Amino acid sequence: MGGDRAPDVVLSGANMACERYPEARFLVHGDTVLLQRSLEKFRRLRDRVELHAAEKVIADDARPSSALRGGEGSSMWNAVRKVRDGEAAGVVSAGNTGALMAVSKFLLRTPPGVGRPAICSILPTLRAEIAMLDLGANIECDGENLFQFAVMGAAFASAVLDRRPTVGLLNVGQEELKGGAALRDAAARLRAVSKPGFDFKGFIEGDDITGGAVDVVVTDGFTGNVALKALEGSARLYGAALRRAAKSSLAGMAGFWLARRTFGKVRDRLDPRRYNGAVFVGLNGIVVKAHGSSDAFAFANAIGFAVDMSRHGFLEDVRAAFERTAPPVAATAS
Amino acid sequence: MGGDRAPDVVLSGANMACERYPEARFLVHGDTVLLQRSLEKFRRLRDRVELHAAEKVIADDARPSSALRGGEGSSMWNAVRKVRDGEAAGVVSAGNTGALMAVSKFLLRTPPGVGRPAICSILPTLRAEIAMLDLGANIECDGENLFQFAVMGAAFASAVLDRRPTVGLLNVGQEELKGGAALRDAAARLRAVSKPGFDFKGFIEGDDITGGAVDVVVTDGFTGNVALKALEGSARLYGAALRRAAKSSLAGMAGFWLARRTFGKVRDRLDPRRYNGAVFVGLNGIVVKAHGSSDAFAFANAIGFAVDMSRHGFLEDVRAAFERTAPPVAATAS
Repeated sequence: MGGDRAPDVVLSGANMACERYPEARFLVHGDTVLLQRSLEKFRRLRDRVELHAAEKVIADDARPSSALRGGEGSSMWNAVRKVRDGEAAGVVSAGNTGALMAVSKFLLRTPPGVGRPAICSILPTLRAEIAMLDLGANIECDGENLFQFAVMGAAFASAVLDRRPTVGLLNVGQEELKGGAALRDAAARLRAVSKPGFDFKGFIEGDDITGGAVDVVVTDGFTGNVALKALEGSARLYGAALRRAAKSSLAGMAGFWLARRTFGKVRDRLDPRRYNGAVFVGLNGIVVKAHGSSDAFAFANAIGFAVDMSRHGFLEDVRAAFERTAPPVAATAS
Repeated sequence: MGGDRAPDVVLSGANMACERYPEARFLVHGDTVLLQRSLEKFRRLRDRVELHAAEKVIADDARPSSALRGGEGSSMWNAVRKVRDGEAAGVVSAGNTGALMAVSKFLLRTPPGVGRPAICSILPTLRAEIAMLDLGANIECDGENLFQFAVMGAAFASAVLDRRPTVGLLNVGQEELKGGAALRDAAARLRAVSKPGFDFKGFIEGDDITGGAVDVVVTDGFTGNVALKALEGSARLYGAALRRAAKSSLAGMAGFWLARRTFGKVRDRLDPRRYNGAVFVGLNGIVVKAHGSSDAFAFANAIGFAVDMSRHGFLEDVRAAFERTAPPVAATAS
């Protein structure tokens, strides 16, 4: 029931995902009258879906604390509970981000060795797609938090990007002395890991994000959120500037008309919608947050994250990674 | 003598600036043999320049501490000293940023009421040009620092953008409860100022930077540096993606050829070079840092910042602003 155009977008996205993922089945929670009516439009989905009545919906502007207090029985709560109870492999929601994080933390808890969950997403770069976290769950982070984000981000990248990932810590310079104590501590911890399952590349800078310098960009939730939104804003600035400029001359108009397919391809490749799903890592369950303004295509991509993570055993990878990395960290701290 | 193509770029930039700013005169510090040879190429500049021999140059990779210890007598040091001694209205350098900040702090000091200088620059947005600070001088900032950056950034925007500016604090959400203690403290201080000379608009988010939501974006040096570099990286990503895409089809190639002037205009408008000068605010003198990779056009723009700030009495404005704002802040703190 979450997002700007629920439930149509949710069912339409699931319908698209049916084609891409033949094994996928859906438990959809919400107002079953609305859901039933919307389902008429989506033939493929009909025999792959169960509708579950939920008595309420968590509002888009609800605070996380009130979602926790009054959220039991809501569509979001029930969907997350299906994951906790082992009836669903993952949950995908376009609803209230803060509420989804709070409910997920409460119902799913963090696995052993993980202090705090983080928000992770995939971004387009000059080279290949990369993962970046934390994108806003944790405003202030210490070195241990950043270290854990790196380990979980690497597991996510292994599952979704399907390669042994390189990892970088976002900083204001590559020199060892730059940045704060948390960054230096995280770097020391990452260097101390034996058999990490990823290659730690040290510090990177803001332009290395879209430069594709590493597969996993690790930062605190404040910086990550600002950087991600700055990139989204920049995409809008370029699009608007090109459109405006095209209208300023006949040659520009003609050229843009001729190159319209090419533009379309670039837009699709760099489109935030394609990179839509944000994943909550550091929970005992797969939780994907689709953007509130998702269309069906974007929602299907968010479902794709959950499927990929489930197929590749992301949760088991994180657990194994912390078993592997735990001893050297303890040794460093003693 | 600073930057990738000194001293030619510096003299060529000054030569360009001579045309734009008929009142400008230049004191150029460095290796006078090299400077004299380069000067042959720049007719306009010849009778508006004095060459001053400097016995050494601060290296691009010198640490700020070693620039301070061994920098006396260098071209950078001598140029800043001319500002301190009242012989120059401002200094412009494409040299080592950390060294320029250290030498400027040492020789010029901060004015009354200013704790730390900050790095400020102009950025293109969907609406109009805006100013943003701090871009990397101060990794960790408290509420008082952010408050001072806001006041100085507003004075800079008034001088260079020539309007009564709006000011926003960069945060991860517009709600009062988001962000850390420093941001909440800065917001309270900014709201408490009477007759501030700017309009405080509260918190803004990362996409509001290029959205042009406010005239002055205020943040700590870590976040500002990451966000600025992320925007630069995004510009490169778009440029490269469009160029690549254009080569993929005949229609794309033809369209791009027809629209090449239009593209050129967009690139020029959003070109980081046009927004090249970074200004050090919070010093008893005008100090402008041109990018190390500046060409003559970019260096001339950096000179333009210094001229604009001098013409508009930026230093006097900052001093007056802190006289105006000081009492309410003291009252808030007591």
